[in-house]
Amino acid sequence: MAITIDAPLDMHLHLRDKEMLKRVAPLSSDSFSGAIIMPNLVPPITTKEELISYKNRIKEAIGEDNFTPYMTLFFKPTYTKEFLESIKDELTAIKLYPAGITTNSEGGVSGFNVEELRPTLEAMSELEIPLCIHGETNGFVMDREAQFVSIYEMLATNFPKLTIIMEHITTKESVEALDRFENLYATITLHHLMITLDDVAGGMLQPHLFCKPIAKRPEDRDALRRVALSGHPKVMFGSDSAPHPQDAKESCGCAAGVFTAPIALQVLTQLFMEHSTPENLQAFISDNAQKIYKNITVPRKSVVLEEKPFTVPDKYGTVVPMYAGEKLKYSIREIK
Amino acid sequence: MAITIDAPLDMHLHLRDKEMLKRVAPLSSDSFSGAIIMPNLVPPITTKEELISYKNRIKEAIGEDNFTPYMTLFFKPTYTKEFLESIKDELTAIKLYPAGITTNSEGGVSGFNVEELRPTLEAMSELEIPLCIHGETNGFVMDREAQFVSIYEMLATNFPKLTIIMEHITTKESVEALDRFENLYATITLHHLMITLDDVAGGMLQPHLFCKPIAKRPEDRDALRRVALSGHPKVMFGSDSAPHPQDAKESCGCAAGVFTAPIALQVLTQLFMEHSTPENLQAFISDNAQKIYKNITVPRKSVVLEEKPFTVPDKYGTVVPMYAGEKLKYSIREIK
Repeated sequence: MAITIDAPLDMHLHLRDKEMLKRVAPLSSDSFSGAIIMPNLVPPITTKEELISYKNRIKEAIGEDNFTPYMTLFFKPTYTKEFLESIKDELTAIKLYPAGITTNSEGGVSGFNVEELRPTLEAMSELEIPLCIHGETNGFVMDREAQFVSIYEMLATNFPKLTIIMEHITTKESVEALDRFENLYATITLHHLMITLDDVAGGMLQPHLFCKPIAKRPEDRDALRRVALSGHPKVMFGSDSAPHPQDAKESCGCAAGVFTAPIALQVLTQLFMEHSTPENLQAFISDNAQKIYKNITVPRKSVVLEEKPFTVPDKYGTVVPMYAGEKLKYSIREIK
Repeated sequence: MAITIDAPLDMHLHLRDKEMLKRVAPLSSDSFSGAIIMPNLVPPITTKEELISYKNRIKEAIGEDNFTPYMTLFFKPTYTKEFLESIKDELTAIKLYPAGITTNSEGGVSGFNVEELRPTLEAMSELEIPLCIHGETNGFVMDREAQFVSIYEMLATNFPKLTIIMEHITTKESVEALDRFENLYATITLHHLMITLDDVAGGMLQPHLFCKPIAKRPEDRDALRRVALSGHPKVMFGSDSAPHPQDAKESCGCAAGVFTAPIALQVLTQLFMEHSTPENLQAFISDNAQKIYKNITVPRKSVVLEEKPFTVPDKYGTVVPMYAGEKLKYSIREIK
């Protein structure tokens, strides 16, 4: 049986830069129509010049035209309305990181003083630029995201017209927040739909499944699955696919990130075919995002998957993917 | 200021076998008077011959006489009273592992059918052989130990004269169980007094701090510190020092275990001098154990520590210790 996904979108993607960019970008552009590109390079993307230059490097790495990198800036409370107006045509969203919370986030926001943030967030609201947030506090690792929900609520209340996207949510607390505020949305990764902390640290320690936010409890995964599989209109697929070289993962002080870009469509198809419907898969992986992000245009692309085993490569270059060496049930038959 | 510890005891120690045994045994015997030696070799120690042979290999690795390895058997419900009587003089305790719960525990107990366990546990009770337990279920990694408390309670109730030692406890639930049953005791490791899950997976992933049971929440560590630092008479130091070669720790599928034997006295002295008293340190590290384990004799040894920096080696052979390369506040001045 063949499943066709129209215009798959990855609403949270790390493409890195230089050699890694060249290696991983085609693995997304081959099968996705577009992706929200994270700005946390070293240094992060904070100017129009950097953004355009990065976009061009991505296009060069991809070498084709039917994939759109939706560019983002690294949030700074110093962005003025004039600046945002000047960059609006190149910009799809702005990503806010609390300071030091994940890979390359040192220059992020410390404390959440609403008055300090107000000018920039009001300008974004007026210009209809969505705000993407990595929502974790500096608290205990299993509590960080749930503790951040009050900050989401503060922002949603103070900026009711701002589209706020809770990125890569991992907890039932975030799922519950979705329906309390009209302007709160969420992305969910593949790996958080599939694993819990047990898979990371319940048997042997599995560095290739270590990510931020860390995978949580079984009841959290259940809550994520519930909204994703039901096609809930406020959730979108965002892989947070985050490549690191193998030696940075399998070492003392392993870097955070799971690499899923080249296997995401296959695994999501299996998950939805077993527990939901093709319609809900289409909603989760494209249609919802197109309704939430009113400022994107989506290149036409259709991906046809079929029930035919696909053995995941052990590595893509130096990067070990999720499910490396394992056999998946669905494979990509055709991309039109 | 000098601190003298009389007859330090490590009531939970992994010495492994062969080359690793030769490497790590002296690191315990140098400064400790004795240690409870875990029986989970491959295959585990289940006969008198294996136990005596392992004891001799340990003595050979140590090459001195003022350290006693307190030998243990790997629990089997098939041990008869006759067998236990025949081995009693060589045996200090029996260690029970739930099947598959940690390193080399595949042959452990599945399910806890009290009637199946009764003959062996009643014999141990009569012969005054303590039962040491790795208390974890197969549940979610953060819940396993708390879920096991009901099994501790079942055993403590059914075998009220059996000395039951909850090994390497990590949760407030286990601490609370201590005072509910007269015959329940506990060992606590150095690392569980020092770290939480945040140290393992809150920043970068730290394989050298990955252990079973996994380090838990801040409030769990607080509960452990409360009983250890107060000199609570039912808790004893047991390092659970568990050496693995560096490449087995820093790899995909990292083995569980923290290596602390050569730094334990220094770190515990600092902890107790900052938050408690030398008397409580003495109780935690030796006196309580001598009262709980009525069947041990303790070689005389005094370890004098002083406030003088000690830089932890990066490695002992192929094994990376906790706090590798870091500077500790106390060092060992003299062993008498």
